[in-house]
Amino acid sequence: MCLYPRASSNRGTPVTYCVAIKLNAGLVLLSDTRTNAGLDNISRYSKMHCWEAPGERVITLLTAGNLSITQGVVTRLEKQIEKSHADPGIETIMNADSMFRVAQIVGENMRMMQERHREGMEAQGTRFDATIIVAGQRKGGNVRLFLVYTAGNFIEATDDTPFFQIGEHKYGKPILDRVITSQTSLEKASLAACVSMDSTLRSNLSVGMPLDMAVIETDALVFAKRRRIEADDSDFNALSAAWSKALNSAFYDLPDLQ
Amino acid sequence: MCLYPRASSNRGTPVTYCVAIKLNAGLVLLSDTRTNAGLDNISRYSKMHCWEAPGERVITLLTAGNLSITQGVVTRLEKQIEKSHADPGIETIMNADSMFRVAQIVGENMRMMQERHREGMEAQGTRFDATIIVAGQRKGGNVRLFLVYTAGNFIEATDDTPFFQIGEHKYGKPILDRVITSQTSLEKASLAACVSMDSTLRSNLSVGMPLDMAVIETDALVFAKRRRIEADDSDFNALSAAWSKALNSAFYDLPDLQ
Repeated sequence: MCLYPRASSNRGTPVTYCVAIKLNAGLVLLSDTRTNAGLDNISRYSKMHCWEAPGERVITLLTAGNLSITQGVVTRLEKQIEKSHADPGIETIMNADSMFRVAQIVGENMRMMQERHREGMEAQGTRFDATIIVAGQRKGGNVRLFLVYTAGNFIEATDDTPFFQIGEHKYGKPILDRVITSQTSLEKASLAACVSMDSTLRSNLSVGMPLDMAVIETDALVFAKRRRIEADDSDFNALSAAWSKALNSAFYDLPDLQ
Repeated sequence: MCLYPRASSNRGTPVTYCVAIKLNAGLVLLSDTRTNAGLDNISRYSKMHCWEAPGERVITLLTAGNLSITQGVVTRLEKQIEKSHADPGIETIMNADSMFRVAQIVGENMRMMQERHREGMEAQGTRFDATIIVAGQRKGGNVRLFLVYTAGNFIEATDDTPFFQIGEHKYGKPILDRVITSQTSLEKASLAACVSMDSTLRSNLSVGMPLDMAVIETDALVFAKRRRIEADDSDFNALSAAWSKALNSAFYDLPDLQ
């Protein structure tokens, strides 16, 4: 499993942190916006891409890894949707008959982008790894969550593994491992995603504010929440401070080891 | 900074977790014992090596990375000590005139091991990365903590960076970042090291029990504690359960995000 997508440069180290949680109640999605091509070349790109046909389907993609590849995939998906307005026979992520098929379409576009650029990037020594999280629901189907790999293959989240992380995932995993189950509420899962992100932001310079958050409620078929969290967001900063304080007091209340 | 030492095989992924914390009160050292040369070839080796001349000096090494290299370094250090019994003119980590010089000696032996085996290992595609934490105190000197890299160069822990981690360090870093300062007590730092290890054990199969712990009190010049923590250790398991419970209740007490 490739959970170490790299930046768009050959100097890349893990960069980006995205987390997607699938619950009985719906989906919680959170991503940072930092990309780099070396520490002296840092910029911001949204790694969250949302599509919505209210009452019919709602889809979010989260991307990590080589930015030229993931931007290429998203552009191809957008083009297909645009063309399908004139020719409804063209299959797109917005008319595919299942979320499984949506994940396949994303995988096929990933493979096409890889085929086009891989050889050139390999010759340069550039990392071409990319991973894309596909989350959403269409009318008549279930809420589903997939993780598409560089090769275009993908896996689906289950009750045993209710969340996916891409990019710099390690710092933020312990809290998710401990609090997330399929029964967790959307509110608590949103908090857990933020705490997980906060731990990552504190420990790794290559992950940075602002953040993008989306929440999808099961069977609502519209976004329940889409929010950009800026560096000066008072709610997020209050949460970060409250968690730090709670963690410290929980730690200082532990009995000493014998 | 190479913080991803590999197993002794070319199939290696990060393996081992060692943490060393330097406080005003002394040193806390904790390591796991798992090594692998691929998931189907897992064994146990202590990664903690202790030397003590009560009242004169106390030294601990923690090792990560290529096992043939780190075992080679430790064997060379042991041989030097053995030979110095007959010929006190031979410089060893047990008679060197400062902890800085001890770190230099470890670095020199690392370089010799690398020079001897690097070419052969490179030809095989084997990772030869290794890192060694050097911790201790000699009579008349301060408690000191160093991190020796593959090339034999090293850095020292300071008040700003009071701990070093080697191996699979990411899962266990957030808790250390939040609770450790130079003023932390030896008891609380021991707890923090165990909580940090517990988070790593839960999230990564390549780190495994039993654990080795050592505690050095400033100016005592003997080990205050040396303890092997087995998988069925009731204290460690109680701590793990208490921390999980405390973390969950701290999390569930957080106010919802607006």
